[in-house]
Amino acid sequence: MVPRQTSHDLRNESRFEVLHALFTLGPSTRQELTRHTGLSPATVATLVNEFLAAGVLRIATVERRTVGRPYERLSIDPDRGRIVGVDVAETYVDATVFDLKLGPLGNSAITLDEHKNDPAYVVDGIVTATQNALATVDADPAELIGVGVSMPGQVQPDSGVSVFAPNWQWHDVRIEELLENRLGISVYVDNPLKAITLAEMWFGVGRVTDTMAVVNLGTGVGAGLAIEGTLIRGATNNAGEWGHTLLQLDGRECRCGRRGCVEAYLGVHGLEMTLAEIDPDHPALQQLLQPGFIDAVAEGLAAGDAAVAELVDRTAHYLAAALGDLVNLLNVSYLTLTGWTTAAIGQWLIPAVHRELPGHVLPGSLPGLVVEASAVPGNPVALGMAAFTLEQYLGKLGVPGPASALRPRRQGVSGSGQDRASTGR
Amino acid sequence: MVPRQTSHDLRNESRFEVLHALFTLGPSTRQELTRHTGLSPATVATLVNEFLAAGVLRIATVERRTVGRPYERLSIDPDRGRIVGVDVAETYVDATVFDLKLGPLGNSAITLDEHKNDPAYVVDGIVTATQNALATVDADPAELIGVGVSMPGQVQPDSGVSVFAPNWQWHDVRIEELLENRLGISVYVDNPLKAITLAEMWFGVGRVTDTMAVVNLGTGVGAGLAIEGTLIRGATNNAGEWGHTLLQLDGRECRCGRRGCVEAYLGVHGLEMTLAEIDPDHPALQQLLQPGFIDAVAEGLAAGDAAVAELVDRTAHYLAAALGDLVNLLNVSYLTLTGWTTAAIGQWLIPAVHRELPGHVLPGSLPGLVVEASAVPGNPVALGMAAFTLEQYLGKLGVPGPASALRPRRQGVSGSGQDRASTGR
Repeated sequence: MVPRQTSHDLRNESRFEVLHALFTLGPSTRQELTRHTGLSPATVATLVNEFLAAGVLRIATVERRTVGRPYERLSIDPDRGRIVGVDVAETYVDATVFDLKLGPLGNSAITLDEHKNDPAYVVDGIVTATQNALATVDADPAELIGVGVSMPGQVQPDSGVSVFAPNWQWHDVRIEELLENRLGISVYVDNPLKAITLAEMWFGVGRVTDTMAVVNLGTGVGAGLAIEGTLIRGATNNAGEWGHTLLQLDGRECRCGRRGCVEAYLGVHGLEMTLAEIDPDHPALQQLLQPGFIDAVAEGLAAGDAAVAELVDRTAHYLAAALGDLVNLLNVSYLTLTGWTTAAIGQWLIPAVHRELPGHVLPGSLPGLVVEASAVPGNPVALGMAAFTLEQYLGKLGVPGPASALRPRRQGVSGSGQDRASTGR
Repeated sequence: MVPRQTSHDLRNESRFEVLHALFTLGPSTRQELTRHTGLSPATVATLVNEFLAAGVLRIATVERRTVGRPYERLSIDPDRGRIVGVDVAETYVDATVFDLKLGPLGNSAITLDEHKNDPAYVVDGIVTATQNALATVDADPAELIGVGVSMPGQVQPDSGVSVFAPNWQWHDVRIEELLENRLGISVYVDNPLKAITLAEMWFGVGRVTDTMAVVNLGTGVGAGLAIEGTLIRGATNNAGEWGHTLLQLDGRECRCGRRGCVEAYLGVHGLEMTLAEIDPDHPALQQLLQPGFIDAVAEGLAAGDAAVAELVDRTAHYLAAALGDLVNLLNVSYLTLTGWTTAAIGQWLIPAVHRELPGHVLPGSLPGLVVEASAVPGNPVALGMAAFTLEQYLGKLGVPGPASALRPRRQGVSGSGQDRASTGR
């Protein structure tokens, strides 16, 4: 139970607004930052000085004018440090090194054996992928300001990481501590729905709206939510489990234990079941691994295979219905689709969804509704985790204590849910 | 499409925080208001002075101390004015006169013929109920600071009121203007989901949490949402249409035109259909009007009727599933139930829902989950509309212009969606 709370951490929120504005606007004057954020000139000046003192910002250009003071245009210094964003899934670890402007510099991925997922094995995989990624860019360890790691399942703020996915029998595993001990740097852990949403807020439709649903379609499905600029976390950081809302009461069995969840129809295994209903002998069903199945479906679509075309039609019916629920409940205007199912078959699926949507969305919420593939580049989970890590790092600037500019104190998931709720503004 | 916007109307939000604190805390010192709201002492002092100057606040008590300045304890002056909150449904208009502390003073209800719902007929009904309610308390018309009217269906900020309910063929009816011309006072129009949510935020579980879903069960069903103190309106003020999310893809026909919506199972007509599946000859189904049906069900439950007991079990299964979707998507911890179905059969339905919930809620979102009947007294729609009207009135304080203290300029639904989004903080 979260206690009644109305006072936000305004200073931190303002910091994130300025940071977000710098990513959106590019090199900016203090005046432009003030106008874009709606903050007071004094607040912007204070935060800019803080960022300059820490070396995070630099003066990119100075525009001299005939009268008055010159305008300094400020920019994030990409080379002030390095951040690693890590996307951990059930079958792989994908680590990307970013500069401070969140430009990707290098990448390393390793495969996880999905039958070996004890914490020590997964921690080894994360450490290896992180170190390999840093090696690809010859990064000086002293340059590293933090590592952000997305873990599949429910990341509970108060207990390290506990994962709900049936395949991962983790409870109260303090993954952050385990990783910090191995990597010797502060680690921020969150769940992938939160990461893709922050990435979308900073580098996707967040440039034109502050309210959106970011719909991930892969092995699991979920919808990250941002409303009026706030990333929705919920009481225990579990918001966004759209995959475990109903499509069909008492319908297909879902791996969560309930029947009829959206994921049982729109997760990759759900697509396999739908295709088996259409043609149980379809060759795509011979693929042992889910990525192979999705690739085979994409190939069939490109080749005009009637069974996979029917699969797309039925899947579009399910997806339009489930997206309609999001729109009817929250009256969001922007839904962006991401995940590897989207990447593989989105070009066929999304137009079919557009045709179905008017049958599922209330008329008052339909005008202006945008449903499209996410335009966030690269791996949005890794990018979002890098953005969280940068926020965490900047959140510690100006905080007195043993934190040095380059090596902030341990931080992150051990805070209260309320603290985390303000992250991502 | 709502333009990218990050700067809120902080002054107005602060005003509402102070107002909300006064309702929550009762008579308060400036220090207590500062502590509760998290605002700066200077902001609280400014707003308190504004409220004192307008006569909305008065100094209730002065506590003298041995050293230092005396503490003034401030209280809303209930007799500074009167507000009428009006709940318009398809079959009735219920008007309540409130004092400025939102205490109910008098009430008048009239029946609407559901086959006669042209705007002129409904406007007549609202005017009559409002005038009758004012007459019951001998209110001086000069005391009236505003009338808040909840209209069923989708209240569109940009077009007066357009109603989506199939029974009401209204489009672009500027109900606010029609009412202001008749009543000679400013009128604020909104929809009932928003009203019950504001009432819950001020007078219900809002006292212990700022994140909640307020679930209305009546002819229609819906869920008002507040997240971190913000009333969720959505892009076109249509958020909360949980009644038109799916329970059963391609299931029962819903009056919205889609099949399988929650409302087709949990609206009163849905309950009638479920009972007809159990016992098509059940006497409760002979009732011509929905309230008669619900009363007959309640009587049957009290008398141990097996068919209505089965109706409650099936309805609890549907309701737990649909509430589970809200919890899984938003990770809210507080769900309060309201509406006349709740009032009539909640004592049987809610315990049955509690038994079903663990089968529908993700384990990580279950601990601490509270599902209970709303404790908001009286008609929460009328109360919420009065609260909106008070907010609107206070929002005009200190605004230069022709608005007098007692007669603010026309305001409310003609603003942009973004303006409205900040109301209810």
